[in-house]
Amino acid sequence: MSILVVGSTALDSVETPFGKVRDILGGSAVYFSIAAGYFANINLVACVGDDFPQEHIDFLTNRNVDIRGLQRKDGKTFRWEGRYDSNLNEAHTLDTQLNVFEEFKPVIPEEYKSCEYVFLANIDPELQLDVLKQVKSPKLVACDTMNFWLENKPDVVRKAVEKVDVLIINETEARQFTSECNLKKAAKKIISMGPNTLIVKLGEHGALMFRESSIFFAPGYPLENILDPTGAGDSFAGGFMGYLAKTDNLKERYLRQAVIFGSVMASFNIEDFSLNRMRDLPYEDIEFRYKKFKELTDFKDL
Amino acid sequence: MSILVVGSTALDSVETPFGKVRDILGGSAVYFSIAAGYFANINLVACVGDDFPQEHIDFLTNRNVDIRGLQRKDGKTFRWEGRYDSNLNEAHTLDTQLNVFEEFKPVIPEEYKSCEYVFLANIDPELQLDVLKQVKSPKLVACDTMNFWLENKPDVVRKAVEKVDVLIINETEARQFTSECNLKKAAKKIISMGPNTLIVKLGEHGALMFRESSIFFAPGYPLENILDPTGAGDSFAGGFMGYLAKTDNLKERYLRQAVIFGSVMASFNIEDFSLNRMRDLPYEDIEFRYKKFKELTDFKDL
Repeated sequence: MSILVVGSTALDSVETPFGKVRDILGGSAVYFSIAAGYFANINLVACVGDDFPQEHIDFLTNRNVDIRGLQRKDGKTFRWEGRYDSNLNEAHTLDTQLNVFEEFKPVIPEEYKSCEYVFLANIDPELQLDVLKQVKSPKLVACDTMNFWLENKPDVVRKAVEKVDVLIINETEARQFTSECNLKKAAKKIISMGPNTLIVKLGEHGALMFRESSIFFAPGYPLENILDPTGAGDSFAGGFMGYLAKTDNLKERYLRQAVIFGSVMASFNIEDFSLNRMRDLPYEDIEFRYKKFKELTDFKDL
Repeated sequence: MSILVVGSTALDSVETPFGKVRDILGGSAVYFSIAAGYFANINLVACVGDDFPQEHIDFLTNRNVDIRGLQRKDGKTFRWEGRYDSNLNEAHTLDTQLNVFEEFKPVIPEEYKSCEYVFLANIDPELQLDVLKQVKSPKLVACDTMNFWLENKPDVVRKAVEKVDVLIINETEARQFTSECNLKKAAKKIISMGPNTLIVKLGEHGALMFRESSIFFAPGYPLENILDPTGAGDSFAGGFMGYLAKTDNLKERYLRQAVIFGSVMASFNIEDFSLNRMRDLPYEDIEFRYKKFKELTDFKDL
């Protein structure tokens, strides 16, 4: 099965205690696509400026990513500059230049419209709603958002959330969105809005998947060398959606496995800057780390 | 098998967003004893003042706790006053009155000295070392500590840690103790000091057990109603040590199960103020929640 993803394509400048890089490949749709591309064909809708290097385009097309929906515009590509302190848990945005992304209007190519799996990466919720109007009854729609939209367009976020099957956000956002400190209560509120599944990302501690009648906890993978957490959430979503599209089965069993594959992809991604860790990563390593997650959480019944 | 525990006995005053209580039963050794008492006989060494209510003594003796090592002194019992904000993750100490605890010198009764399992709750590391001089080659010694000792007596904490098998501390303390932000690196440093096992408590997100050649991640149990997190860490240690003493087996398999029992006891403890949740809690409920932990983390192999 193919996945449609709509999100950002960016040139990031990132500083962490372990290094500093300028104008490297980034953006939510890119992290998602490369991670999900291990499992399924990806249909990308995003936009880049005329300064976006051809090598990045080649990287995407070489990795199962269809770029017929990638808009190329006159002007500069979206740029984000951020810094992480030693705990690596929080990004401090130093500069954001929207550039061509400011006028981004997602146009879903005809060939993409019947995609069964749709991921709305973190973009303006108005655009997320606009995408949903263009697609034909997909089997699964997941979306992400961020504190900026929760603060500035809470009602529009709400409208988008009501229309998706899976919401993937972080702990702070779940609390902010529902004005509820307790995560289990926050999850109930969100599930009552429409989604049948809520995934709450806990940073280095893992992720929780809440459904109507079950909760699943996936641990964070303990790593000794984390270079750059940028894109962890989108890599997670990529592994999660990718595995679901691959199996094309939405039973609890597969959703749980998908959460682990999401955690696996996020754990690889943060081991290097930009998408570097995923450039030469063989699929066997992904399955090997999946097994490591099993070892990490395994304990005997009574 | 019996467990020797040395720690504090206190009358706590606690305020959380869900209520306020004054002079209620508390103290690290008490939380530990009541939790561990579900699994094993407990030998308690602690001290109380002449104001310590007889009903608390009765509660302990009714729950497998031998109090021949409980010193009763003229003066007031140790008092701690704290407040938790809405996220419940951090205790703000409002007042500490050491009272009789200031002069506490642990004296291990002859009958306790051959205990195979020893837990050194969070007390002055000099006293922890002093206890270790009094006991006869136990099979397993675990200890806790806190930021206050890490700041004020780091060398003494280090000496105590070198002598124990299991160190149980929280995430912030692990980082502080090793000056290492990365938890896996911090764990390596601590294990190189002497303990064969390090348990890092992650608050509501669970706990990580690091050993020479394995890592185990136990989730936090998602609860809708958390009234008071006081004593969660000591209840965890109680469930962990209690189960180990019960099975009297230190193989990885049992250590992992013990971490889950620790998490189970902590999850019950925080559902009410003081030790109230453990007053009428039947053992079957503990096993039932253990099974819930299994459901919470279970996923299929590839």
